[in-house]
Amino acid sequence: MPTLTNGRVRHSAVFTLKHPEGSAEEADFLEAIARLQGIPAVEAFELMREVSPKNDFRFGLTMEFADPAAYAAYNNHPDHVAFVANRWDPEVADFLEIDVAAL
Amino acid sequence: MPTLTNGRVRHSAVFTLKHPEGSAEEADFLEAIARLQGIPAVEAFELMREVSPKNDFRFGLTMEFADPAAYAAYNNHPDHVAFVANRWDPEVADFLEIDVAAL
Repeated sequence: MPTLTNGRVRHSAVFTLKHPEGSAEEADFLEAIARLQGIPAVEAFELMREVSPKNDFRFGLTMEFADPAAYAAYNNHPDHVAFVANRWDPEVADFLEIDVAAL
Repeated sequence: MPTLTNGRVRHSAVFTLKHPEGSAEEADFLEAIARLQGIPAVEAFELMREVSPKNDFRFGLTMEFADPAAYAAYNNHPDHVAFVANRWDPEVADFLEIDVAAL
């Protein structure tokens, strides 16, 4: 994993869906979230299973940005704004956002 | 960031210390936690600042293991066991552990 230097930000989220595991709705949501990696400035995108018994989240998502301005551009991108309003807010039961930068 | 294939596990934690920011105790803890990367099987170790306004954690830690057996070996290593008992449990105010694997 490249270390976070020169203003890079790694944006992550862990989340659980309202949809049953293995359902078509779950699969459709995961496909939709994977499409976010097409938004300019998104780097090192990964969608993963969350496997720790120490929390109740089911999925993890991570991506990196070259700097805070790139991260802001992503946040404000129409595709991201639409995804949050149309998919994330209605379909995610619980989540936590985590952003990290160089120490 | 290498993708998580073939049983690889990325182990992460976000945490906040009991010590004041910028204190000598804080610096000493961060040095101690950085020494965990010397434990066999630890890969891709990173210690970072947590910068999201959406949670109250102050630091992030991530590392990877080739497979669950390597992760277990780390967890059971005497240096890790001692670190948790002597440093983590007394000095960490709040934390969340997150483990991710391939979807």
